[in-house]
Amino acid sequence: MGLVVADDVLGRGLQRIQREVDACFDQLLPVPDDARAPLVEAMRYAVIDGGKRVRPMLLVTVAEMYGASRDAAVRAGCAIESIHVYSLIHDDLPCMDDDDLRHGKPTLHKQYDEATAVLAGDSLHALAFEILGGTLVSSDPFIRAELVHALASASGHNGMAGGQVMDMAADHEQFDLHGVTRLQQLKTGALLGAAVEMGAILGKVPADGRTHLRNYARDIGLAFQIADDLLDEEGDEEKAGKALRKDAEQGKATFVSLMGAEGARAQAHALSEQAIGHLSGHGKEADLLRALARFIVERDR
Amino acid sequence: MGLVVADDVLGRGLQRIQREVDACFDQLLPVPDDARAPLVEAMRYAVIDGGKRVRPMLLVTVAEMYGASRDAAVRAGCAIESIHVYSLIHDDLPCMDDDDLRHGKPTLHKQYDEATAVLAGDSLHALAFEILGGTLVSSDPFIRAELVHALASASGHNGMAGGQVMDMAADHEQFDLHGVTRLQQLKTGALLGAAVEMGAILGKVPADGRTHLRNYARDIGLAFQIADDLLDEEGDEEKAGKALRKDAEQGKATFVSLMGAEGARAQAHALSEQAIGHLSGHGKEADLLRALARFIVERDR
Repeated sequence: MGLVVADDVLGRGLQRIQREVDACFDQLLPVPDDARAPLVEAMRYAVIDGGKRVRPMLLVTVAEMYGASRDAAVRAGCAIESIHVYSLIHDDLPCMDDDDLRHGKPTLHKQYDEATAVLAGDSLHALAFEILGGTLVSSDPFIRAELVHALASASGHNGMAGGQVMDMAADHEQFDLHGVTRLQQLKTGALLGAAVEMGAILGKVPADGRTHLRNYARDIGLAFQIADDLLDEEGDEEKAGKALRKDAEQGKATFVSLMGAEGARAQAHALSEQAIGHLSGHGKEADLLRALARFIVERDR
Repeated sequence: MGLVVADDVLGRGLQRIQREVDACFDQLLPVPDDARAPLVEAMRYAVIDGGKRVRPMLLVTVAEMYGASRDAAVRAGCAIESIHVYSLIHDDLPCMDDDDLRHGKPTLHKQYDEATAVLAGDSLHALAFEILGGTLVSSDPFIRAELVHALASASGHNGMAGGQVMDMAADHEQFDLHGVTRLQQLKTGALLGAAVEMGAILGKVPADGRTHLRNYARDIGLAFQIADDLLDEEGDEEKAGKALRKDAEQGKATFVSLMGAEGARAQAHALSEQAIGHLSGHGKEADLLRALARFIVERDR
């Protein structure tokens, strides 16, 4: 994937999860020998060999910290990645952000057509809950139901999709720092939070033992989005594999427009350190989470 | 709703479930006091006061036959209706069927805009699994996980969405009766089957005791779609509340084009009687299911 990752252990960890997620999707999505073939090919185009896999990485790392099976966690990671990818497919549609490029490849509606993009997104959405509801991830129905509820709550109108609509409203009304923070907590933060929460569910961490993990997730979620705004302002389109500087062109409020580039950078680093602080009760087993918190603000795409 | 229903008991049953589903969605979807308001208003526009509620009716009837709580079954009914309605919203989009009218009202993208229609559909999709994964329907995690799995499997690429893609392929390649049957089993049959299956799950019917219910669901699913094709050919646009005769204009293979109107009508009635035959082991408690099987082929919209 050519990601520049300062931390060797994290670099290897990210490469490993990318391979595992690709292999899992390859198994989950055999191309059928009938008229559904173009749909499944489009789903495969979108989910295999794409993206940094930050959400599966978070989920698997937390799950393994608490002794859950890595194979099961990777499958749950594919469920959350399915939700993330379906949201990108629908975001890229002409009636939404109208983007032509994603991860350096043509967006799905450019490669296929808009109808296939709508349905491939919908099918990946369903796939996430098919993975979690069945016995692929866990034979324990309590864990399955909890995973479903965490992911569905984080992705619907009170989570990611709600944040999307707020983001659309930000095109024509000026949000202040509080408003942008709230918007991003829903749009990006909710799903990153779900990744950590799902890892904790798989690791059987009782709900009242998850506070530090939730605080960690909240801080890296915000840091992630501030870093995204900085990349949108200063990043390299070729490395990013997508169009940049669209927010600035539209005069939309972002962390960078509201705090300035230096202020935003300082805030992202402070949040990253604060996130790491929440892990003080853990030893070496949380090193990957610490490295991820740093990576999230230092990445170049 | 003004539906003409020959059977009094069924007529009252349909009116009752329509009221209950509307009340449940009203409770589930309070309009938030922030920029997400237009999204939730659009979701409410789509799910409240719309449609015949055939899927919730099937689910609730089967669940009650086996002694499940009606309130819980109505909430599960709202979950399957959320999936059905999201699929209609996305189907109506300009890049799909490009329809202006649904249930006699402007389609969602006409009333709001396309981006809101995409996101309202996605949010209803997530809502379905939020309802089922949480404790709204059942405190038994096994039931929750089974409900999720049944609904997700029936709606993704191996069910409803897969059928949609086959339907798109039927625009440019000529399907035979076998092909149209397979297409409709996925596009319409899978979700009607899930309604019956979910009722059986709530009623704690063991998997090996569901065969007759599955056979009933398969037969009414096909009968439902043949009746739909007949309505598309012979129906009244005003009563239907949507544009008709689109398939014939496109020269698309349907049950009517392949069997003729009389052949199709006879087949729908035969399937409806065959469906009723599968209920021979039940007494009066299955009368609503029998009436539904007749209603499905006799309805005028």
